[in-house]
Amino acid sequence: MLTGGARAVARCRELAVAPFSDTAEGLYRGYLTPAYHATLTRVGAWMAEAGMTTRIDPAGNLVGRYEGTDPRALVIGSHLDSVRDGGAYDGPLGVMLGIETVAALQGRRLPFSIEVYGFGDEEGSRFPAAMLTSRAVAGTLDADLAAIADGDGTPLSAEIDIAAFAGARRAPGTTLAYLEAHIEQGPVLEAAGLAIGTVTGIAAQIRLAVTLGGMAGHAGTTAMPLRRDALAGAAEMILAIEGIARDEASDLVATVGRIEALPGAPNVIAGEVRFSVDIRSGDAARRDRAAAVIDAALRAIAEHRALSLSTSLVHDLPASPCDPTLMDLLDAAAAEAGHPPFRLVSGAGHDAMVMAALAPTAMLFIRCRDGISHNPAEHVEPADADAALAVMLGFIERFGDTCA
Amino acid sequence: MLTGGARAVARCRELAVAPFSDTAEGLYRGYLTPAYHATLTRVGAWMAEAGMTTRIDPAGNLVGRYEGTDPRALVIGSHLDSVRDGGAYDGPLGVMLGIETVAALQGRRLPFSIEVYGFGDEEGSRFPAAMLTSRAVAGTLDADLAAIADGDGTPLSAEIDIAAFAGARRAPGTTLAYLEAHIEQGPVLEAAGLAIGTVTGIAAQIRLAVTLGGMAGHAGTTAMPLRRDALAGAAEMILAIEGIARDEASDLVATVGRIEALPGAPNVIAGEVRFSVDIRSGDAARRDRAAAVIDAALRAIAEHRALSLSTSLVHDLPASPCDPTLMDLLDAAAAEAGHPPFRLVSGAGHDAMVMAALAPTAMLFIRCRDGISHNPAEHVEPADADAALAVMLGFIERFGDTCA
Repeated sequence: MLTGGARAVARCRELAVAPFSDTAEGLYRGYLTPAYHATLTRVGAWMAEAGMTTRIDPAGNLVGRYEGTDPRALVIGSHLDSVRDGGAYDGPLGVMLGIETVAALQGRRLPFSIEVYGFGDEEGSRFPAAMLTSRAVAGTLDADLAAIADGDGTPLSAEIDIAAFAGARRAPGTTLAYLEAHIEQGPVLEAAGLAIGTVTGIAAQIRLAVTLGGMAGHAGTTAMPLRRDALAGAAEMILAIEGIARDEASDLVATVGRIEALPGAPNVIAGEVRFSVDIRSGDAARRDRAAAVIDAALRAIAEHRALSLSTSLVHDLPASPCDPTLMDLLDAAAAEAGHPPFRLVSGAGHDAMVMAALAPTAMLFIRCRDGISHNPAEHVEPADADAALAVMLGFIERFGDTCA
Repeated sequence: MLTGGARAVARCRELAVAPFSDTAEGLYRGYLTPAYHATLTRVGAWMAEAGMTTRIDPAGNLVGRYEGTDPRALVIGSHLDSVRDGGAYDGPLGVMLGIETVAALQGRRLPFSIEVYGFGDEEGSRFPAAMLTSRAVAGTLDADLAAIADGDGTPLSAEIDIAAFAGARRAPGTTLAYLEAHIEQGPVLEAAGLAIGTVTGIAAQIRLAVTLGGMAGHAGTTAMPLRRDALAGAAEMILAIEGIARDEASDLVATVGRIEALPGAPNVIAGEVRFSVDIRSGDAARRDRAAAVIDAALRAIAEHRALSLSTSLVHDLPASPCDPTLMDLLDAAAAEAGHPPFRLVSGAGHDAMVMAALAPTAMLFIRCRDGISHNPAEHVEPADADAALAVMLGFIERFGDTCA
């Protein structure tokens, strides 16, 4: 017989292929697609088997409820949608582990209820809007649902009753806390040799779009001193950005992941380069300081190279700290389960950052191989899922004590 | 009445729009397209008006002949085809100036003949092969013509008799020299404040394709010390390449014009980057030394960043020096016409490098605004074309003396 963690992993793998994927090759599960609906049916059956009553809320989220002596609930959730060519665990593992916690309780009546959420739209997997469904649950939805359509032009309103959508909101006072287990999507736990870690918060993020203007010219006929090479300028900027983040020697990360050089021919000096800059830290002030240093560096480089520089702010997301009391509960549960307490920031966004508007939140990260995610190579060891399950169960025990 | 240079410029502009362009917007004149054929007819009429007999040779080149006392000819040529969205002068100006030299002779009988060539395929404007037509004339054609087709799948053989093509070869002993006037396509003359310059040769060129392998990862969740960022590595390499070429402080140029980062998302660390390196110098040994220094730098950077590095040689073109005696004739003609003799290397390839296999070659560069070419903004001042015409006529006078 499988352990709970192994079963959670096996179920994620089961959900990673048709009919639970919209594509025959690789995993893609878009919000409200046929594969999504098939997934709700299958996961709902697992919830029922674990002892939960199930419903699909007005935002299309799957919700399993396990009744306690108090109707107010600890919500355990993550998302069921997947990016294109994604991995099996990003999202579903947290839902499967939520189901396993209830299964492990074997009908025991707790001093609080548990609701397990499988959120529908975390990735923006189909519609150009992310976390629509957790925002509906948290009551922070401000999107114009009538204006949302997928890449094929199918409006959201053709797939779900948008007038009822916001009714997914959890009534005030019914949510005690939110707990989410998720793969780390990074190599920090692996490098530390740890199965799991307590998340301190979701990083504050700044995304910039930079456009550098130089002068295009023939690569064979333009002498070096006469060049205004936008790509050489971009190269100097990319190195500066990397250096600034490295020198911080903190949780600060800065990344240039996208670059485009125009016209982009081997025999033409780049006249224009566009690139992205992504800056994150669990500490918004640190992030903002780094962004200011990076901005000054880019300006200085553009000036000494006589390049035009245009920087626009694509988005600026505040940090979303986890609840300190709940972090302590996770740490204590980890220690009891034989895992050294370890804290790390989440560089990626999660439904937890949305749910923080509704209730105190906690997140538990699970090691994934080579830190790889959003990729078919995403991999989680069953033993690590078992470690997470043990910590979640320990958390639930302690959470009951704090409620008492 | 227009000066000869002004008329040459005006004719280039006339040829830059339909029916002499294959596109309604911008200039594109592909080899053997309707616009190409229309151009041969128009330019042939101008040749006849200048006193030449005309023919279209078996490679589709337009040839005007001006008979001298000796049937052996000084060939003056350039190309009539144009890249997509190209400029009016790149190629046609040299042909127009060839016609103007003959027009300026006003029927005077020289001790040698002149043939003006409008080459059909210098740019590889339509078929994936460049300088097919000058190679046919020079007798160095080694391409499999039956295998050549354009982007739409139309074979070269549907447009021209490929069995007869090589018959465009000039009979041995009939060509005294080759002279080509061409826009500089770079900013050297403009920076020196000069209308024209004597080309010393066509640069030796090495083109490399570099692939760097790192590790893709989530930009928010991968701590800086754990990264193997292929784009940051490429940035360091691009700066190194620029620095090596700058420090040479010679005619050496090195350019990274094309770059691609994969997967290319703002929130993903680049796992792979591909870029081009183009290295040129009039001195092949200098180019090879620089290429070796660049290669060592790339290896060192890849090693200290733990990136995989793969470098492939795309092409290696030898230098094609111009004839020293003919360069002296151009310099003397320039001085007489009131232009300080000035020598520069051609970073770009030209039909002259092909024709060097047939006869001694000379090239005269003409200033173009901001060094811009392969662009609708390409611009030549009529006065600069007049300067070039005066130098070409002075060259012809002196060339007659050397023949005598």
